[in-house]
This record gives sequence, structure tokens and C-alpha cells, in this order.
Amino acid sequence: MSQTSNIRHALSVTREADFAAWYQEVIAEAEMAEESGVRGCMVIKPWGYGIWERIQKLMDERIKEAGVENCYFPLFIPLSYFAKEAEHVDGFAKEMAVVTHHRLIGDGKGGLVPDPDAKLEEPLIVRPTSETVIGAAMSRWVQSWRDLPLLTNQWANVVRWEMRTRMFLRTSEFLWQEGHTAHTDRADAMAETLRALEMYRSFAEDDLSMPVIAGEKPENERFPGAVATYSIEAMMQDGKALQAGTSHYLGTGFAEAAGIRYQDREGGQQFCHTTSWGVSTRLIGGVIMTHGDDNGLRVPPAIAPHQIVIVPMLRDVPEDGEIIDYCKALQRELAAQRALGEPVRVHLDLRAGKAANKRWGWVKKGAPVIVEVGGRDVAGGNVSWFRRDVMYNDAGKIASSIDPRDKFVAMAAAVLEDIQGDLHGEAEKRRDANIVRGVDTLGALGECFAESQRYPGWAEMAWARPTGAALEAVVQQLKTLKLTIRNTPRQAEPVSGTCPFTGQPAVERIYVARSY
Amino acid sequence: MSQTSNIRHALSVTREADFAAWYQEVIAEAEMAEESGVRGCMVIKPWGYGIWERIQKLMDERIKEAGVENCYFPLFIPLSYFAKEAEHVDGFAKEMAVVTHHRLIGDGKGGLVPDPDAKLEEPLIVRPTSETVIGAAMSRWVQSWRDLPLLTNQWANVVRWEMRTRMFLRTSEFLWQEGHTAHTDRADAMAETLRALEMYRSFAEDDLSMPVIAGEKPENERFPGAVATYSIEAMMQDGKALQAGTSHYLGTGFAEAAGIRYQDREGGQQFCHTTSWGVSTRLIGGVIMTHGDDNGLRVPPAIAPHQIVIVPMLRDVPEDGEIIDYCKALQRELAAQRALGEPVRVHLDLRAGKAANKRWGWVKKGAPVIVEVGGRDVAGGNVSWFRRDVMYNDAGKIASSIDPRDKFVAMAAAVLEDIQGDLHGEAEKRRDANIVRGVDTLGALGECFAESQRYPGWAEMAWARPTGAALEAVVQQLKTLKLTIRNTPRQAEPVSGTCPFTGQPAVERIYVARSY
Repeated sequence: MSQTSNIRHALSVTREADFAAWYQEVIAEAEMAEESGVRGCMVIKPWGYGIWERIQKLMDERIKEAGVENCYFPLFIPLSYFAKEAEHVDGFAKEMAVVTHHRLIGDGKGGLVPDPDAKLEEPLIVRPTSETVIGAAMSRWVQSWRDLPLLTNQWANVVRWEMRTRMFLRTSEFLWQEGHTAHTDRADAMAETLRALEMYRSFAEDDLSMPVIAGEKPENERFPGAVATYSIEAMMQDGKALQAGTSHYLGTGFAEAAGIRYQDREGGQQFCHTTSWGVSTRLIGGVIMTHGDDNGLRVPPAIAPHQIVIVPMLRDVPEDGEIIDYCKALQRELAAQRALGEPVRVHLDLRAGKAANKRWGWVKKGAPVIVEVGGRDVAGGNVSWFRRDVMYNDAGKIASSIDPRDKFVAMAAAVLEDIQGDLHGEAEKRRDANIVRGVDTLGALGECFAESQRYPGWAEMAWARPTGAALEAVVQQLKTLKLTIRNTPRQAEPVSGTCPFTGQPAVERIYVARSY
Repeated sequence: MSQTSNIRHALSVTREADFAAWYQEVIAEAEMAEESGVRGCMVIKPWGYGIWERIQKLMDERIKEAGVENCYFPLFIPLSYFAKEAEHVDGFAKEMAVVTHHRLIGDGKGGLVPDPDAKLEEPLIVRPTSETVIGAAMSRWVQSWRDLPLLTNQWANVVRWEMRTRMFLRTSEFLWQEGHTAHTDRADAMAETLRALEMYRSFAEDDLSMPVIAGEKPENERFPGAVATYSIEAMMQDGKALQAGTSHYLGTGFAEAAGIRYQDREGGQQFCHTTSWGVSTRLIGGVIMTHGDDNGLRVPPAIAPHQIVIVPMLRDVPEDGEIIDYCKALQRELAAQRALGEPVRVHLDLRAGKAANKRWGWVKKGAPVIVEVGGRDVAGGNVSWFRRDVMYNDAGKIASSIDPRDKFVAMAAAVLEDIQGDLHGEAEKRRDANIVRGVDTLGALGECFAESQRYPGWAEMAWARPTGAALEAVVQQLKTLKLTIRNTPRQAEPVSGTCPFTGQPAVERIYVARSY
């Protein structure tokens, strides 16, 4: 990503100067989201929400393709459901929004207060996740092995009271999908857990152009109550890891708490094995930190609300009409093309304002292809266009091409598909260049993440997969370096050698990194 | 809807015997929704949610077509925002879910309670509607006349604490879209208000096959703080009216409360004129009570999750494989057709279980076309199929047709489009037959709705459009008959004569009815 110094940047902060400030600036300048005035909650603006709508559409197709059916479950969960969970889950998180009253009343001083006469007998919790309330429904729906597997999903908002929030990455309210499934046995539930993991991996790679490592989280990072937790982990441009999706095999623990039983083929009563899996608006944070550059966001075409934006160069003169007609015809022709399996999404920007400002607005938003049409283009039957992902040439100028309109229309789909692949390739190359492999001593690990390193990346190690107190000792060692174990990759070569943490023979690979 | 008595009904209760019980039975037997165990909240099951997804898709296309952009705003609204509204809105509703704490803690007896140390400084309200929080965002987004109109929408869940709930029609939590727009002046805001009203009217008629009257609500039924409220009103099969969508012109009141100002072309500061408009999961209740019959639901093809369901008649014998292959080929051929502007949605029901039970399951769910394929059909290259909307012939038998497969595939789209239109025609005919027109005295009105009338329907009257105390007197008179004024139709002939309520000259028509 080296750029010559004579290049104009649309943002005031570069990634290199201050990655965290750059992230906030991209979100503001690309008009993706903003603080709402409500603690920890954001307003998702049209460009950010449009990306979420694309994520929803493409993920929902994959979910339905797997035979999972969408439902909707209550926002509120009675307190007693959590008490049940707290009993048997040590890691039970308690930071949740609690509804205690159902009415407001005047305070006699012109203000409003919760009405003391409208106190709920049992407080309600705003769902932080829905295992308990969906488990209660499953206990009604499952009678026999014939009802299994039961495959449900919901798209919903959830709330987890967060002390320190960061837009898209960690907000008190966020949007997500949560899949919840029930199965006859461990093998079937584990197959579903890994199917969801693979769905997330291929979605991240194919649709978000975001390379990820799919693997199992260590015991200490499991979802509370889970038997096994898997994740996809992506490397951000500052080298930190982002957990971008999780899939949990829950064993029979949740089924026992909720009473999800079935009659097996022999007439016996069995508890179901359940799973849950989810991705959230956090993915948008991952897209920003994977593909953004010092000019703003670059959106992979598969999730871009507009894939091609046409900016007419108008001058408030009568000839403008001809330019607009030309652009409308171009828009129709492009929209009749198909790219990445769908009709091309083309936007014609007819707002008032200078063309140059509009161009830079779309650069910051990261529209994959930006077309500019002026009087000279109309006269020549041409279009001027550039790819947002590689917008500068070696001389530091915008790498605009002028092509005959027909030729551009004919090549547009291929250009979009190239961008989708090239963004992935660029991110994968960067990720792979920033993984230090074969780190086999704690000293070597410390050197990787020394203060002098500008770009720490990840360390790949081999370990003995300690559990319990031995694992806790490793976690504490890593904590002194501000590191965590991300996951054990699913597809990996066998390992040999000694675990640097325990001195035992190593049994599997792990990735160690700083993280969001 | 007269049916001969030898017809088998799939439901245990008929509409005529007990409409309210019938409604609940349709929802249960069509597996649309169920009580969740959380007061006033329902679980929307796959068939009900699938209908909602279709409603969302078709409505969202109309919303985007109008240039409105989707956003997402916080679930929580600070109490102080409502205090502002309460100041200037008499009708301010106070039944809302109030969040007062952000943490749970053990009570020392094995239970959990809200942590007294985690009490919020300012309580948060779970949004009952989002005018205030969206108004706050608009006040940041609007600076100049160039920023207007500002056209936003969100798809979200909202909560209104309801004492008496009924699934889909009135639940504490429900799903909806809420459009919120800001404009330079009254004319532009009023045009948007009426555009949304017309969007709802045509959506109801075209996509839900549900005839509606679009018109203005009387002053006493306005949204609190609105200058004018418009609605679409549909007649249910028990003659009651269902308000199925509303659109409000809010004047400058909300803009003044939230500070939504713009600089006009002359450099002066002006308040915006705002609108809001919404439809909700209540529409699904309207679809049930418009199209359901004594065998369950009948879903208009435009919103049916599956438009054609294929039930193979399997007998657990080796020949089953041939039937399944035949059905899969049929499914592919049908899915390659287009009806109502989209690819045909075909479902092949391969679940275990008897074909007859599966058939009746789809009858109760109201799949528009049900196809049954047995060995004889495969041998003859035929399909057996019937339309759910007119499933019985005059002899009281299921009106199944046997057609060559090619012929059926070729006609399937036209059949679906016929069903879409026929359901509308049937509902419109019933609606029009149950409006008593020209009711010009209170005595005549009382007779229309006398206890002896099984099917009251609506009364069309002409009135003087009284306001204030005079209107309140009318409202009270109507209340003794359990009646309300539904709306003043937009498109109507001029009226003459005398207002039966006030004795003044009549100026416009109104519909009077019992309602949900």
C-alpha cells in the first residue's frame, strides 16, 4: 500500500499516522454512521445501512439455501430465564438493559418519571442473545425425532451494555442474525456447527473479499455454556485480529435447561444437541479496516449498494440536458448487465453541487467504479471512468480511462468481478505477509510484538492445547504482551515439536494476536 | 362464500360460528405465530415470517422507488425526548417499556435482581415510534434547502405496552416500517404524505389483494401532534374495519421541538415541515381476516412464501424415487416461469408423513396452488393440482384438475395471476355489498348496527365535518353504538343534504364502522 507522497488524500488522517482516528474518519466521511446521542447506540446512515442490506441479502440466501427457516422471537426475555442460565454458566454476562416499568407519569414538576404503580412483577431483559427464549419455543416444537433437525434463524437487534463502544465494532445495540438449531445427536449438531462456520468463511472471502481463518476458539474463549466455539478471524490493516463470526456447538446443556426433548425411534426420551451461530454489523467494521485506504472506504462490489456511480459534469447551461440524457441511457445499458450473479447496480448522481465534490464524495464512500461524463465525452460517444480500488497511476494521478460507451458497457461486469477478486487478493497478500510462522519460543513471540514493531500482525505457533489451570497460565502469559489466542485453524498441516508454553509435545497450530 | 354443508372443513371453528376463535385457529393451524410466554409478545413462525418477508420486499421496493433511503436509529430513546413531546402533545401515550438498570446481580438467594448500583441516570424508553430520535438526527443533517427533501425510512421493532393483545393485530412488540421525511414547505410535505398513502393503497390492493378505502381520519383520531392523519381502511369478513396503514402530515410542530431548521434560498431560517408513515405486521392480521376461509388461510400469490407446493404421494417403496425425480423436474420447470414480475416460488415437500396430511397442512397454510403427484401421474406425464382459493366444486369435492405436465407448467403463471386478481375481486365484492350507503339519520345508523344484524359492515354517511366539542359529541354518540368514524375517502363524489349529527349542511362523506 505504499503511495508516493504527491498523492492527494481525501482524509485528514492516514492509517499509518493514527489507525483508530482514521477508522472514525472513514465512517464519518463515507457517511456510514454517527453517534446518536443515546449512549452506546449509533445511527446507521444510508450508505452504511445499504451495505448491511447487501450483507443481509447475500447471507440470507446462504442461510435459506441450507434449509434454515427465518422466525422472529420476542425482544424481551423474562429475568427468570437468565436465572436458569446463571445457575449453570460461570461466565454468564450480566451487563444487560433491564426493563422494570411499563408506564411514564408526570413528576408534578413538568417532567416524566417511571410510574411506581406500573412496576413489572418480573423485570424483562432486552435480549443480548436468544438461546433461552428460542430454547423455550423449541421445547414446544420438538416432540419426536421426525421434528429434527429443527433449523431456525432470526434477523434482529440485540443489546449488550458496553462500557467502551466503537462504531460497528462494539455498540450497546447492534444488528445481527442468530441461527439456532436442534439435532438428535452430537454428530449432526457438530456437522451443522461446522456448516455454519464454512458458510461464514466463504461469505467473508467471496462476498466481503475478506480473507479469514476458520478455526476453533480455545476453551477460555468459548461462548458461556458451549462445548465448542468456532470463529472466523480476519486481519485488519493494523495487524490486529477481528473475530468476524462465531458458531457454537452447545451439547445438551441448553436443551436440558430449556427442556428440549424428543422421542427417539425406539420410543425413549432424549435431550437435543443444539447449536447457535451469528454474524453482526461488526462485519462492516471489518470491511472498513480490511479495504479502506487513505481516501476512505473501498466497498467490494458484491456488497456495494451502488456498484457504478455516474457523475454528470453539469455547468448549469442548456447543454446539461444532453449530458443527462446520455447518462440516463448509459445507466439503462449498464443496469441491463449482470455481474457476480445479479443485475449491475448503477446510480446516477443528479444532486445539485459541483461534479468534483460529488466525485470525491463517492471516492470516500468507496463506490467500486466511478464514471464521469462531460460534454466532450458526450460528443465523442465516450465515458471517463476509474476503478476506486486502484485509483492512482504511478505518477500519482487518478488513473482515469476514456473508452467508447459501448466498450465500457460491455466490459463493466468483468471490471466489477475483477475488483471483487483483486480486493481479496490484496488483503490476502497483506495478511499472509504479516503472519510470522513457526514462532517456537516465548522469547521469539515477545520479539514479534515488541514496541519497536510498527505492524505486529499475527504469530503462528504450535502448542499442546492445555486446559484448565494450565491454559489459564498461558492466557495470563499472553496477556502481559496484550495478546490473545485467536483460534486453531481447521485446515492445517500436522505439527511437531514442543509447546513453548508447557514444554509438552505440540498437538495443533494456533494464531496469537492483538485483537479488537 | 356460501358452501354446501357436505364440505369438509379443515378447521374446528367456522367464521360464522365464532370469528374471533376462528382467527386464532387459523394462526395456530397455519403455523403462523404463537404465544411466546413473554407477556404481549408473540413468536412469528416460519410461514408467518415468510409472509412478512414478502411484504417487506415488495414494500421496500416501493419505498426505494420513491427515493426514500433506509437507515437505522436507536432502539432506546432517552426519557427527556418524551418529556419534550409530552409538553406540547395532549394525546401523548404513556404506556411504554422503561429501561432503568443496565446490570443484573445475584440476590444472595440464588436469584438475580437489577443491580441497584447500575441504575441509569436517565431512564431509556424502548421506542414506541421514532419521531423524536429521528427528529434529533434530522436536526443535524438538515442545514440548507439543498438538503431537502430528506427522505428516510427504517424497518424496526417497536414496543407499546398493550393491556389486551391479539396476535398480529395488537401486540406489545411488533415489526414495522416507519418513514420520516422533512420538507421545505407544507405543499411538499403534504404531497409526500399523500404519496405514502397512495403507496399503501396500491400495495394493499395489488400485493395483498385487499381492497381499502384511502382517506383522512377525523380530528379526534389524528396521531398525537399531527396536523392531518390519513389511513387505509379494510373491511374484514366480520364487517369490522381494520386500519391497515397511516400517513401523517406533522406540520412544523415536530421540527420546532427537535430543532429541524434550514436556511432558505434567501438566507432566512425556516422550520421544516415533516411527515411520518407506517405499516406493520398488523397487515398479516388483515390478510387473514380478508382472505381466510373455514379451511384456513388463503395467501395472495404475491406475498406467498411458496406459490406452488408440490406434494409427492410416496408409499415407502422403490418406485418413490421415480416420483421424486419427476417432481424435481417439475419444480425446476415451474421455477423457470415468471409470475407477477418475479420467478415463480415452488416448494417440493419431501418431509416424512402421509401425503394427505401434507396436503391439508398446505391447505390450512393457504399455499395458492397445491400439486399432488402420484405414480399414475408420472406414468401419464400429468400433474394433479388445485387452486386453494376455489378448492371445492359444486358437489363439495376438491376441484382437482389433471393436466399434462407441459400444459400445467405453461399455464402456472397465469393461474397465479388469476388467483391474485380473483382474491381481490371476491374481497371487493363482499366489501361493497356490506357498505350501506346514504345513511342520513341517526335512527337509520342505529338500525344498520342493531343486534339482530349478523354482519354489520360499514355505513357511508355525509357530515358537516364538525371540530372540537361538536366533534366530541359525535364521537360520544357513535360510541354508544360501539362505532367509530373510519375516514373521509379521498376520491368521492360531492355530497349534498344535511349532516345527521349536527344539522349543518353536509360537506364530505365518512365511513362509520366497528373496528379492530
